[in-house]
Amino acid sequence: MRKIIRVDMTHGAVRYEDVPQWDYPLGGRGLTSAIVASEVPPSCHPLGPDNKLVFAPGVVTGTAAPCSGRLSVGGKSPLTGGIKEANAGGLAGGKLARLDIGAIVVEGQAPDGKMRLLKVDQAGATLVEADDLAGKGMYRANRMLRRRFGRVAIIGCGPAGEMRMTGAGVSVNDMENGPGRYAGRGGLGAVLGAKGLKAIVIDDRGGRASPVDDRAAFRREIGKLRAALEASAVTSKALPTYGTAVCLNVMNEAGGLPTRNFSVGRFEGVSAVSGERLNEIITKVRAGKGMVGHRCHPGCIIRCSNVYPKPDGSAHVSCLEYESDWALGPNCGIDDLDVIAELIWLCNDLGLDTIETGATIAVAMEGGVLPFGDGKGAIKLLREVGRGSPLGRIIGNGCVFAARAFGVTRVPAVKGQAMPAYDPRAVKGLGVTYATSPMGADHTAGYTISREIFGIGGKVDPFATNKAELSRKFQSSAAFIDSTGYCLFITFATDASATGFEGVLGSINAMHGTSLTPEAAAEYGWRILKLEREFNQRAGFLKAHDRLPDFMVTEKLPPHNTVFDVPERELDAVFAV
Amino acid sequence: MRKIIRVDMTHGAVRYEDVPQWDYPLGGRGLTSAIVASEVPPSCHPLGPDNKLVFAPGVVTGTAAPCSGRLSVGGKSPLTGGIKEANAGGLAGGKLARLDIGAIVVEGQAPDGKMRLLKVDQAGATLVEADDLAGKGMYRANRMLRRRFGRVAIIGCGPAGEMRMTGAGVSVNDMENGPGRYAGRGGLGAVLGAKGLKAIVIDDRGGRASPVDDRAAFRREIGKLRAALEASAVTSKALPTYGTAVCLNVMNEAGGLPTRNFSVGRFEGVSAVSGERLNEIITKVRAGKGMVGHRCHPGCIIRCSNVYPKPDGSAHVSCLEYESDWALGPNCGIDDLDVIAELIWLCNDLGLDTIETGATIAVAMEGGVLPFGDGKGAIKLLREVGRGSPLGRIIGNGCVFAARAFGVTRVPAVKGQAMPAYDPRAVKGLGVTYATSPMGADHTAGYTISREIFGIGGKVDPFATNKAELSRKFQSSAAFIDSTGYCLFITFATDASATGFEGVLGSINAMHGTSLTPEAAAEYGWRILKLEREFNQRAGFLKAHDRLPDFMVTEKLPPHNTVFDVPERELDAVFAV
Repeated sequence: MRKIIRVDMTHGAVRYEDVPQWDYPLGGRGLTSAIVASEVPPSCHPLGPDNKLVFAPGVVTGTAAPCSGRLSVGGKSPLTGGIKEANAGGLAGGKLARLDIGAIVVEGQAPDGKMRLLKVDQAGATLVEADDLAGKGMYRANRMLRRRFGRVAIIGCGPAGEMRMTGAGVSVNDMENGPGRYAGRGGLGAVLGAKGLKAIVIDDRGGRASPVDDRAAFRREIGKLRAALEASAVTSKALPTYGTAVCLNVMNEAGGLPTRNFSVGRFEGVSAVSGERLNEIITKVRAGKGMVGHRCHPGCIIRCSNVYPKPDGSAHVSCLEYESDWALGPNCGIDDLDVIAELIWLCNDLGLDTIETGATIAVAMEGGVLPFGDGKGAIKLLREVGRGSPLGRIIGNGCVFAARAFGVTRVPAVKGQAMPAYDPRAVKGLGVTYATSPMGADHTAGYTISREIFGIGGKVDPFATNKAELSRKFQSSAAFIDSTGYCLFITFATDASATGFEGVLGSINAMHGTSLTPEAAAEYGWRILKLEREFNQRAGFLKAHDRLPDFMVTEKLPPHNTVFDVPERELDAVFAV
Repeated sequence: MRKIIRVDMTHGAVRYEDVPQWDYPLGGRGLTSAIVASEVPPSCHPLGPDNKLVFAPGVVTGTAAPCSGRLSVGGKSPLTGGIKEANAGGLAGGKLARLDIGAIVVEGQAPDGKMRLLKVDQAGATLVEADDLAGKGMYRANRMLRRRFGRVAIIGCGPAGEMRMTGAGVSVNDMENGPGRYAGRGGLGAVLGAKGLKAIVIDDRGGRASPVDDRAAFRREIGKLRAALEASAVTSKALPTYGTAVCLNVMNEAGGLPTRNFSVGRFEGVSAVSGERLNEIITKVRAGKGMVGHRCHPGCIIRCSNVYPKPDGSAHVSCLEYESDWALGPNCGIDDLDVIAELIWLCNDLGLDTIETGATIAVAMEGGVLPFGDGKGAIKLLREVGRGSPLGRIIGNGCVFAARAFGVTRVPAVKGQAMPAYDPRAVKGLGVTYATSPMGADHTAGYTISREIFGIGGKVDPFATNKAELSRKFQSSAAFIDSTGYCLFITFATDASATGFEGVLGSINAMHGTSLTPEAAAEYGWRILKLEREFNQRAGFLKAHDRLPDFMVTEKLPPHNTVFDVPERELDAVFAV
């Protein structure tokens, strides 16, 4: 039976309790959203003592199931004002599960404004002063913590989170102790910083693999999933070879790669920043410390991560994935992978979400602060965040904030959160997800791209506007998968393989002695979505917030010259069931 | 029959049409809100081409009625995201009415980003290039325009509005051509700037007093109002002698004068910034160019305005009124009238709302940018706005914005707009108005202080929480008065004088041949409120936004040590009729 650790930052106290039970095992996003929805006052200030920050490994995390190491982070978002779940790979999910911890709930607020760290191990959890870590970048903080604690997992916030900037994410370290596995979205790093918690250190020595009810059945079921992952060209070939950056050429071809602050859907410099070029640099041009097919956590067999090398062959940053590459590249008119790598390194070190930050730099470019394509200027701008200068505070607070500072009206955001790397005018289903997800604009919340662009499980016309049902299904499925601890990328295989999906449900059933059916899994996801949506309604969201920014409804996107023309009734239909 | 002038900034075109008709004459706030609610898409970006900015004199403006020269300015607010009406005295209302202009509606957006001015005279309206005015402070801009056009009325935006800062107000010149009569609230100055309109210049030569249906009855009715104004100690003695700053000692005594970012309800330095001290400086210590009992527009007999002198006796700024005095004084811990006068001068010149700006400086002080009480620092900070530096852009965008930049969670605002000079924990009825008004936190939207503190028309306990009905009545009355063109301050007299209020209705009826009863007037106000509220609902507001910030519900305000404990059901009751 997994335990919940409650950490009261106001009084420096820690206590333990059982994980609440639903009809089916609760973990990951299901657990973070259930706790946030029932315990956080929807009207509270997200950076005040009444917000809670919840960390939960997934239902199957801590087992031998492939790609099952995800960690969900949830709370009221200071970026959107609504409920938030962001998840990450890295070491923390697995180590928490191996200590039989279902969730860590961080409550209250340090009354002295000082930074502390939470040490979690087999003996329990302890709050420790951490003055020496205050203000440190995540690379340095991780080195200091590893020197002190050994091969621990580290969850933390960078200077941006400590300064309560709403573009701040939550860092999770990877297998080489890089801080670049981020639960990036929604500003949850600022919640961690506002609570006065610089880091959570997890030492799983003496822990054990999460117990499994029927071990033979479990082995059989994860075997089905593994077979599906190995059979899929996406998960067994494209992702380990090129990383997620394989999407750059694909989306560019589709005319939906947002370029220069979502003004065009194709980038003339795409080949210089594509997944293909990335692979070439890592494996040939600069063969050395770089790496493709890197796994972000033990047990990952997709291995979409990478380590990007400097010109001298030494490691620069991990990882250079599609969203970061796009956000800090084409969306800023930048076509230089070395510049993009440095911008990602800075985001990782400062503790910033790369998507939000790229969107923000692009808005600053549109506002005349620096020209599109100015890589050196972008690096300089990002360094201001670490200084906490007024300019840095504008950049660190995300694209809606920067737009207001610089008087820019073309703001690619929904519910305060910047859009990811797919222009909804060229992929309407994902636009429906952006508009209606309780998370704000978020591709992982209902990744219809899978069908609209890749055609997995049957191709759907990306320009068709009848996408309520498609988005609903993908949102519901994502909420379920995000609760299991499985990486969302397994769906590239399981959406095309009935036995693969059988393995997903079968592994949960074998582990927990349950009998989750595909219908029940969909219902499970739907129930989480409803909880989240109800929280948002109490926090002040209604239909009028389930809309894309008006410039996307009126301004045509080249090269297809289409607007976002999904009718409002179609948007409203997503949750009207 | 008054005309509407429609100015299409996108195409540089001007056209004319009739004022729409209700059961009763439509003007002022009634007209601006009717046009905005029916023509502006609620989801549009307030600084984009789809927003409209409407200027409308009141129903009786342009006549000999006392204190009837108000001008309403309406649009979708870039500060709140909801509908907005802000009104001002000064010359513009009267001159528009004398040209038979019911409203100017500014639509679209200058495609070249350049500044223009609109010249309005008996021949019509013309858009003129105004490159020479771009970036100019309002004092200089007004001098340039008067040199060029003679004794015109000037409506304009300062550099803050041109830079689209959401703390920007709309300036209206006074009888000495000072720019300090502001329709300050809600960031409407940024809408003017975003449209590309630096100024509207109104030359009423050849115009005429607004026609009156029954001149004898009109003379009789305005006589009743005049008698009430002369009989009231507030409107005939306190206001002309001390100005509105007479409230400083009163609210300090009541324990509801927000001090140092709403952390205390009493200011130890109040006597140095009080209305009494102000009078002493103007009339005795520095007798010279200063003036008390100054009128902001011809026909005002209350004369609450003043001209504050420099130590050498020359004029410094007009006017130093309660809200500005408080916002830039006690709320920032500043107890020096000369510093406050300079801060007001800077707001007037830059085109900033003094309430929003004072709240913003106080939030910056709480965030550690400068210490409370640092007058020189505040002046330096405000000058950054004119430079358009990143720090200036943070300050120019209002207190919610600055709070996010500086990680401050105590933010005294509702619907994005800073609270005025009454702490709702000590005056609960005004708190109900702050929470529920479609305008965001706004004292003029339903000034229950009149009864809760001054006891005009019967004293009501300020700490009692059953204030839904009181706030509703005051909100409805304010919406009506703001439509007539009468200054809201007449209600200090007419709320205590039945014949005075008869004069208000009687003057409208005599002018227009109508038969407006007190019940119909209340219904008129209510209808405007409902229109505004419906717009806001379509723009994304619901009950959850009709709330005060949570720190006011949990944090006790000295000296009474009370929280804002009006139940949510009481707040929801205001509009649930």
